[in-house]
Amino acid sequence: MPRNVDPEQRRAELAQAVWTVIRRDGLQRASVRNVAREAGLSMGSLRHYFATQAELLCFAMQLVGERARARVRAVEPADDPREAAERLLLELVPLDDERRAEAEVWLAFTGHALVDPDQRAIHQRIHDELHGACVTAITLLADAGLVPGDLDVGLEAARLQAVLDGLAVHAVMRPERVPPARITAVIARHLDSLQAGATSA
Amino acid sequence: MPRNVDPEQRRAELAQAVWTVIRRDGLQRASVRNVAREAGLSMGSLRHYFATQAELLCFAMQLVGERARARVRAVEPADDPREAAERLLLELVPLDDERRAEAEVWLAFTGHALVDPDQRAIHQRIHDELHGACVTAITLLADAGLVPGDLDVGLEAARLQAVLDGLAVHAVMRPERVPPARITAVIARHLDSLQAGATSA
Repeated sequence: MPRNVDPEQRRAELAQAVWTVIRRDGLQRASVRNVAREAGLSMGSLRHYFATQAELLCFAMQLVGERARARVRAVEPADDPREAAERLLLELVPLDDERRAEAEVWLAFTGHALVDPDQRAIHQRIHDELHGACVTAITLLADAGLVPGDLDVGLEAARLQAVLDGLAVHAVMRPERVPPARITAVIARHLDSLQAGATSA
Repeated sequence: MPRNVDPEQRRAELAQAVWTVIRRDGLQRASVRNVAREAGLSMGSLRHYFATQAELLCFAMQLVGERARARVRAVEPADDPREAAERLLLELVPLDDERRAEAEVWLAFTGHALVDPDQRAIHQRIHDELHGACVTAITLLADAGLVPGDLDVGLEAARLQAVLDGLAVHAVMRPERVPPARITAVIARHLDSLQAGATSA
């Protein structure tokens, strides 16, 4: 890493080094020592940016949420509500190498967050944000009359969120069986089935 | 642990000790030393049953699959195909403490299996078995004419498996938001939506 960089940029680079170590060696190897070595910094220099390993790992975990949030903000608007819902949802599943990396890191943190209260709190906040995105997608369809009028939005958001998170696990653990084309087909089919039975359909 | 027990029983008890350590302290603490202490055995005695930590962890991971398999075999038969499908699927989601424990252990192993080829192979076999159970559930409905005739069984099995695995993650990570009643409601709604549009409906 070059010297004299912006501290925020250096922190982001260190979070990336955490991701690299997690993906190659596992979360249990993401010690301050190993991450500093990966980033080409001394442990003392790393501690200038993150006082503890816990702080470093939480920052690296939050980066997953930030990247997803940035992608959702950058979604091209669509006039067609179905198209808008589909574009939003497709940003939240691992369709390319960048998002597969995110999903791998997320899965490693998920397993560990069960016994780490700080990581668990981050996990729950991001879970709730993802739930909000699912409510948004279904509300886009409902407001346009594209789903039956008596649809239970909360229940459907929970079901949609299960589909998204289940697909993310499968894409990471079984990429031969659940490639990007399968993921997009499952999401399209899910939206089709939500729209079935709408009076305006 | 008492002496003079059946070796298979002792191995199962040691796998349970692995689960206890994983749920309380995390997978990274499931060393031979910590598991032996949890089970009240010396490290030498534990090594009589499992030569390496890797062997011990793989056995503990396979136990998740065995328990699910045993529950599926023990499902009460139902004359009604919808009821039969629902009973099968409900055995595969964490509706009680026992199955929540399984799901927690499974999630811990999932995060770690990314960087452990042996654990990954076990994960993939169990993924494929779960896919088979989803195909079975959908075929039960299809054979009875309860779903549209042109339903894509492979795609629907992938979607259903995503629902089941997503619900398992949510039940473990966000139990206040995704309690057992929510899980059963999501599965019932998913089967209802599969059945919508069937000619015999």
